[in-house]
Amino acid sequence: MSPISVRHLIPVLSLCLCAQYSAAFGLPNPGLGRFTSSLAASTLKTTSVTDGTTPSDDAKIVQFGGSALPQEKPDKQIVGGKGLGLQIMSGIGVSVPPGFTLTTPVCQEFQDSGDLSDEMWAAVREAVKRIEKDTGKGYGNPENPLLFSCRSGAAVSMPGMMDTVLNIGLNKETVEGLAKATNNKRFAYDAYRRLLDMFGDVVLGISHEAFERRLEMLKMKKGVRDDTDFSADDLEELCEAYYEVYAENDKSFPEDPFEQLKACVKAVFSSWNADRAIKYREINGIASLLGTACNIQTMVFGNRGETSGTGVAFSRDPGTGENKMKGEYLINAQGEDVVAGIRTPEPIARMKEVLPDAYEQFMSNVDILEKHFKDMQDVEFTVEDGKLWMLQCRSGKRTGQAAFKIAADLVEEGLCTPEEALFKVEPDHVKQVLHPTFSSEALESKEYKDNVVAVGLAGGPGAAIGKLAFTTEDAEARQSEGVILVRENTSPEDVGGMWAANGIVTSRGGVTSHAAVVARGWGKPCVCGCEQLEIDEKSKTMTVKRTGETFTEGDTISVNGNTGEIVRVAIETSSPALDGEFGKVLGWADALSDKCKVMANADSGPDATKAAELGAQGVGLCRTEHMFFAPERLPVVRRWILRGEDLDKVQEFQRTDFREIMAAMDGKPVTIRLLDPPLHEFLPRVQQVDDAMAKELGYSSAAALISDIESMHEENPMLGLRGCRLAIVRPEVATMQAEAIINAAADLIEQNPDAKPFPRIMVPLVGSIPEFVTQAIIIKRTAERIKAERNIDVPYEIGTMIEVPRAALISDQLASVVDPEDGQPLCSFFSFGTNDLTQMTMGISRDDSGAFIPTYLENGILEEDPFKTIDAEGVGWLVRHSSVNGRAASPGLSLSVCGEHGGDPQSIEFFDKVGLDYVSCSPFRVPVARLATGQAAVKRDGGECDVKRL
Amino acid sequence: MSPISVRHLIPVLSLCLCAQYSAAFGLPNPGLGRFTSSLAASTLKTTSVTDGTTPSDDAKIVQFGGSALPQEKPDKQIVGGKGLGLQIMSGIGVSVPPGFTLTTPVCQEFQDSGDLSDEMWAAVREAVKRIEKDTGKGYGNPENPLLFSCRSGAAVSMPGMMDTVLNIGLNKETVEGLAKATNNKRFAYDAYRRLLDMFGDVVLGISHEAFERRLEMLKMKKGVRDDTDFSADDLEELCEAYYEVYAENDKSFPEDPFEQLKACVKAVFSSWNADRAIKYREINGIASLLGTACNIQTMVFGNRGETSGTGVAFSRDPGTGENKMKGEYLINAQGEDVVAGIRTPEPIARMKEVLPDAYEQFMSNVDILEKHFKDMQDVEFTVEDGKLWMLQCRSGKRTGQAAFKIAADLVEEGLCTPEEALFKVEPDHVKQVLHPTFSSEALESKEYKDNVVAVGLAGGPGAAIGKLAFTTEDAEARQSEGVILVRENTSPEDVGGMWAANGIVTSRGGVTSHAAVVARGWGKPCVCGCEQLEIDEKSKTMTVKRTGETFTEGDTISVNGNTGEIVRVAIETSSPALDGEFGKVLGWADALSDKCKVMANADSGPDATKAAELGAQGVGLCRTEHMFFAPERLPVVRRWILRGEDLDKVQEFQRTDFREIMAAMDGKPVTIRLLDPPLHEFLPRVQQVDDAMAKELGYSSAAALISDIESMHEENPMLGLRGCRLAIVRPEVATMQAEAIINAAADLIEQNPDAKPFPRIMVPLVGSIPEFVTQAIIIKRTAERIKAERNIDVPYEIGTMIEVPRAALISDQLASVVDPEDGQPLCSFFSFGTNDLTQMTMGISRDDSGAFIPTYLENGILEEDPFKTIDAEGVGWLVRHSSVNGRAASPGLSLSVCGEHGGDPQSIEFFDKVGLDYVSCSPFRVPVARLATGQAAVKRDGGECDVKRL
Repeated sequence: MSPISVRHLIPVLSLCLCAQYSAAFGLPNPGLGRFTSSLAASTLKTTSVTDGTTPSDDAKIVQFGGSALPQEKPDKQIVGGKGLGLQIMSGIGVSVPPGFTLTTPVCQEFQDSGDLSDEMWAAVREAVKRIEKDTGKGYGNPENPLLFSCRSGAAVSMPGMMDTVLNIGLNKETVEGLAKATNNKRFAYDAYRRLLDMFGDVVLGISHEAFERRLEMLKMKKGVRDDTDFSADDLEELCEAYYEVYAENDKSFPEDPFEQLKACVKAVFSSWNADRAIKYREINGIASLLGTACNIQTMVFGNRGETSGTGVAFSRDPGTGENKMKGEYLINAQGEDVVAGIRTPEPIARMKEVLPDAYEQFMSNVDILEKHFKDMQDVEFTVEDGKLWMLQCRSGKRTGQAAFKIAADLVEEGLCTPEEALFKVEPDHVKQVLHPTFSSEALESKEYKDNVVAVGLAGGPGAAIGKLAFTTEDAEARQSEGVILVRENTSPEDVGGMWAANGIVTSRGGVTSHAAVVARGWGKPCVCGCEQLEIDEKSKTMTVKRTGETFTEGDTISVNGNTGEIVRVAIETSSPALDGEFGKVLGWADALSDKCKVMANADSGPDATKAAELGAQGVGLCRTEHMFFAPERLPVVRRWILRGEDLDKVQEFQRTDFREIMAAMDGKPVTIRLLDPPLHEFLPRVQQVDDAMAKELGYSSAAALISDIESMHEENPMLGLRGCRLAIVRPEVATMQAEAIINAAADLIEQNPDAKPFPRIMVPLVGSIPEFVTQAIIIKRTAERIKAERNIDVPYEIGTMIEVPRAALISDQLASVVDPEDGQPLCSFFSFGTNDLTQMTMGISRDDSGAFIPTYLENGILEEDPFKTIDAEGVGWLVRHSSVNGRAASPGLSLSVCGEHGGDPQSIEFFDKVGLDYVSCSPFRVPVARLATGQAAVKRDGGECDVKRL
Repeated sequence: MSPISVRHLIPVLSLCLCAQYSAAFGLPNPGLGRFTSSLAASTLKTTSVTDGTTPSDDAKIVQFGGSALPQEKPDKQIVGGKGLGLQIMSGIGVSVPPGFTLTTPVCQEFQDSGDLSDEMWAAVREAVKRIEKDTGKGYGNPENPLLFSCRSGAAVSMPGMMDTVLNIGLNKETVEGLAKATNNKRFAYDAYRRLLDMFGDVVLGISHEAFERRLEMLKMKKGVRDDTDFSADDLEELCEAYYEVYAENDKSFPEDPFEQLKACVKAVFSSWNADRAIKYREINGIASLLGTACNIQTMVFGNRGETSGTGVAFSRDPGTGENKMKGEYLINAQGEDVVAGIRTPEPIARMKEVLPDAYEQFMSNVDILEKHFKDMQDVEFTVEDGKLWMLQCRSGKRTGQAAFKIAADLVEEGLCTPEEALFKVEPDHVKQVLHPTFSSEALESKEYKDNVVAVGLAGGPGAAIGKLAFTTEDAEARQSEGVILVRENTSPEDVGGMWAANGIVTSRGGVTSHAAVVARGWGKPCVCGCEQLEIDEKSKTMTVKRTGETFTEGDTISVNGNTGEIVRVAIETSSPALDGEFGKVLGWADALSDKCKVMANADSGPDATKAAELGAQGVGLCRTEHMFFAPERLPVVRRWILRGEDLDKVQEFQRTDFREIMAAMDGKPVTIRLLDPPLHEFLPRVQQVDDAMAKELGYSSAAALISDIESMHEENPMLGLRGCRLAIVRPEVATMQAEAIINAAADLIEQNPDAKPFPRIMVPLVGSIPEFVTQAIIIKRTAERIKAERNIDVPYEIGTMIEVPRAALISDQLASVVDPEDGQPLCSFFSFGTNDLTQMTMGISRDDSGAFIPTYLENGILEEDPFKTIDAEGVGWLVRHSSVNGRAASPGLSLSVCGEHGGDPQSIEFFDKVGLDYVSCSPFRVPVARLATGQAAVKRDGGECDVKRL
């Protein structure tokens, strides 16, 4: 047998789709995206994925600097991020060393054929000639040698690919020419030894250490401390030593400059598929790229003496966002010297004194670039003999706090519009502002990096430190010490411990597992599905499978919910405060969001209060039963479930909760879902049952209680007795809950006649008309009865979750049912429960998806985790179908989403296009969702939705 | 709190649907059917469900007999079954006593208002006048009193409703008139005492026993043995005694004949909602009826002397189908005397001698009726003073054997066409012919009836006797004794015991639970979900919950898989042989089925052989893994699953199986589904693990094995790691199976060059394009490799199950994927796995549906169990959508269904309309499906399908 593995098939897959479907590729299409890119790549000569036109051959090499005519609208997908900056800089008159970019299609050609074509290489030689003309130097010319740098550069910044080779073009001959031309032998040999080192390391895979050892040997031999103490002859000797390193490694350094260049280009393109790069793309969900571009640029030297130098700078403070350049430079140095930290760079402001003209020019350039890109810039520059060259510019990475400040300031300064400013803030920025995090310094620290023991899924953002607790009881008991609850997975029984913990770690379950959903709802950091850990709740140990390292109760760990990392020591957290810019930017988002509101999923008064603080315009989902687990309530709930007793007491709990939530949201809608989960979720585990518990619950013996618990076991609880099915089998449920809701609202009005509670009652798991109608009539009759009895008018609405595929298919009918008594529609709203809708439409249990979703993502079978980002083609099709048909049948029908996707920006963009009236998500996602609804509307740019918003 | 129960809402529900949707009611619509009927009922004045027109007021009373003008096309829904017979007989000149029918709309009016309207009653009086004219008698006229019978009669025969009241119109005055008019006082008082008894019993709810006691007392007093020995005066005295019974019960007999009549009519209509009637409708899935009609008919008397008589007859033998009248009569008797069994009736043929004219007339009438109805008739008649009156005619109930014989004979005799003949056979008839059953005598016997201890669901047709076995091991060990396997539920581990058992009983799980599906596949009688039983496998006891009666290992029971009954004694079974008519009728069905083929679900050689015998045109679903449970295979399979070892051995098993199946189906397609169930289904239960087993499976300890087993646990296995997901996570699966399949086919060709194996390889649980494509490419490359290696050309196809809703939504793309190497479509066929498609579309786990589906059916929330009959509106919508789009994208795409619905006639009618190319079902359902495909095509009557068959 010679099995064909799935992974080996990935390249072939792309070709399997009929051309007729490529037209559909413009749509968000998780099922096809990875295919799309490969398809586009392998048929590049005739088609391009980015704009549907045939790229001209020139698009394979794009020139910049000097006499080059920069492209009018360079395409980042084609020229990459670095290339784009160079094109733009070149175009707006900023001096960049002349060069050219081999575009991503060339990378794809290389991936397919394994080589660069002769035509391609001829074109490179032509491009080199242009630069020779511009610089008056000759590539490989010993008299006045032209040198190049070679860098990778994809459309998004991506560690893991080949970095940089400098000084390409030097060889035993040209190094002498350079020495002569610059009248600086030391400089020439310094450049040469750097080339030898980098080329050997990066292109030929010779360990950098081997070169370092020779350098150290020479230092000892010469008795010098720093590289800078080497004489010209020392460096010449070093170059000879480096040649020996090549020989020792059975490699040879190509003396032919064009051979050097070709090898570098190939190394760049090969590095696209290096393991590290693939891994990075996987982790960061980068799947839509064609490949990397490769930038060849004339070398300029900051190390040619005291009128030379090099530096990097941010146009604004990337930590705080303050509009003040932040950067550093070194005189007589090359770029890597700044990074390497051998010499301590000077703050950029001091350059004004040393190189005033260059400084002036630089400040002006940065200003031009900031105005052009309408964003804070991260730039690299070199001064060669007093002349400033800009090497690179890109949007600068920034903290959450800075992102909000910069976005607000840019608008203030008239540099961009609020529409544009929204895109200066990313969801991660919002998260950073909301949750305590590890500072960027801490994350960069050795202490952090060396102590990461395992990496799981980033289940809930933020950072936490605490002592291990293995049971909910332990966590509650030791809450004051600060604990991290670690469990194989969590169930609703664990919510007490989860609430008590600073953070949560599970070894099983995905990012929409119970642990993660609850954690995000409460803003607790959570690492879930960390399969590298073996968590044994009995022995109270957490073992790192790979190493066997074992942690026990009370051991302190740090949890990074943003990255999924678990750290074996305490790492300090920082808690940025919300400030004015946060509200300002999100206010713009709200204003721009084209009537798509953001509501929150909130299950208690404190939840609702938090949600209102964070800008929720109502509660889109209140899971009434989440509060059943409070210790004083659980036995009562259990007695009701098992014995049918104490329903009145359960109702009292609910009434209290609803009163608090509606008070917190006064005047805003509060959407309450009737009891949804299988009742056995509220029962004790069989192992926990003892006679005392049995007695408390009204049983004669533990055995009798166990028998009742076991009789409620289900094979597939997800598809079992829950939602409206419960309320049909046990009709007291709907009546009890409707009474609690309407009474709670009436209580508030009774206390304060100006109170404006507005409950909306949502029937879950509806799959057929009769299911909805029976429930709606019970709710309505009950509500009207209470209103009449108390003589208080409570406005309310009744609607349904759309979470069973069948409901989406019969939406026209669901929206149309009317009350026979008054002829009014019974269904005021649909709220898409996209968690369950995804589970059922795709046939995937969230809780069990960990067994194959990672493989699917790795192999491109899935482009995104469908529980994180909506599957637009399948689940989304149903959402759209249901929305269009529901609204057509009932023009006043409100449409919304209340699954986890309601807080995911990519999903929100989809929901915006459909035209939903609101999205609802956990309180801590509300700001992200507000930003995303604004961004989505701006992206749509006046485009029509599938349904018009109410 | 005053809860509103779901049940109380049922009447109101009907009104909740917008009128705009009523247009859709013509479609099969399980979600709305019950509503539809109620809706129609409550808005009857303006709309009718049957034809969309307003029924005229005359339709409320329909007359027959005498001068009545019978309706041209009486509607059975409106006039009921009895009424229809009377209309027809009246129309074709058969003498029926004049009368009239109060139609089902009147019944509905009565249900709604609780009374008969004045207008209605005025119309009744008008109708009575017409009869008075025809008969020359007067209703309530003491001179020559007209008497009526009153009978219920719905569109389908339905026990449990009010039966009959005879002699209505008699009172203290008219009884004397009758005595005078007939010159027979004894006769008159006999009629009177019967009226008093029946009216008291049936209308007023006085126990019949109370009347019986008086009768017995009088017998003792008079010293007579039989009723017939009473003198006229005795009977008069008896009437007085009966009046006393009324008084004792605080009731009074209404002397006013119209009051009598009204009370009877109301009793008939009330009985529609008697518990027994509701129960009967539930059990028999009768939901579409409007109500019962009520037939008022002039009394004729078979007990007016030796030239009078009464009888019942079947126009052909209902047991064998032989074309020979079978019936019996009694001289000087009323109808109930025949039934009551006090006197022994004579065979009908003897009537020729006694009442030759009436006999002649009767034979002629029956002949006319048979020709008119083109079916065997069940008739009742009375001869009064030598004049023959036909009282009732209807299609006669018959055994399976008779049904086939009659259908074939009717065609033979030119009485009907093959198209019509197909409808003389019902699915239950087919089942009877295929499986051993209890004879109708046995079912009627006291021994049977008194010994039924519990009733579950009819999981697998047929009858079985055996000794209880509680484990699969016991069942296998004691197979030779004849055992019934009783379990809480079964899992794939139990198949050995199931195979060994004569029949299977489970206390949990529905008709599509594992137990039932496997049982039907093997033709084993099965009663499933019998919740009245507590089955304890540990203590090996089966306890009837209600009574506490307990059975233990070795006790003998009988199992009726047709009714779900469990009997505490051995009831003899009979095994009708298949005969010529069976093949003839099914041959017509095949010919008429308009290219919709019937294939079988077969997992082994013997299965496939059986399927071919029963007329399957191929294998539509081979579940390759069903054979993994063979004792010698299981450890090997487990080693592969747990340790990745022994894959070659697993492949050898599969190759053997596939060879056998393809050999049995030589020349016909064999559709093999790749491994589908979660692998943990094949693992031992944790409780079963011991060190020996661990060692056998390559583990150092039981603990290590248990840990691995537990790590494979899933929360919702239905939605977990199974189907193609398995083969993506473990790519060796698809390769191994494809090799086994192609090698098996090649083996057959190698053995015999004329062999024509035709495997079709089916990828399960596909939800996305990449899932299918990766699998299809692996299968195709593997197949081509084997063909090349062995140099044998094996034709084969690759296709996919459509069972995940998402797959149905992207069917156009699934059908379109092509192989990049040859540009050929990769997907040759879709087969709808409607079991899983139903689970996911409706969000209902089959295994757990028992907790609410019964309540749903009872309350009309569901019209049918969706796992039995396809949910046309939801699941069926997806089937149609997928079929239409798949075929449009790939005109050669074969479409089929292989879920349980493939054997359900109502579902087959739906699939026929869609235009599927074949249905596939378990071997023993094949004949039912063949009949159903034929019937469906005839019903469609040349109408277009949604897609045109290949």
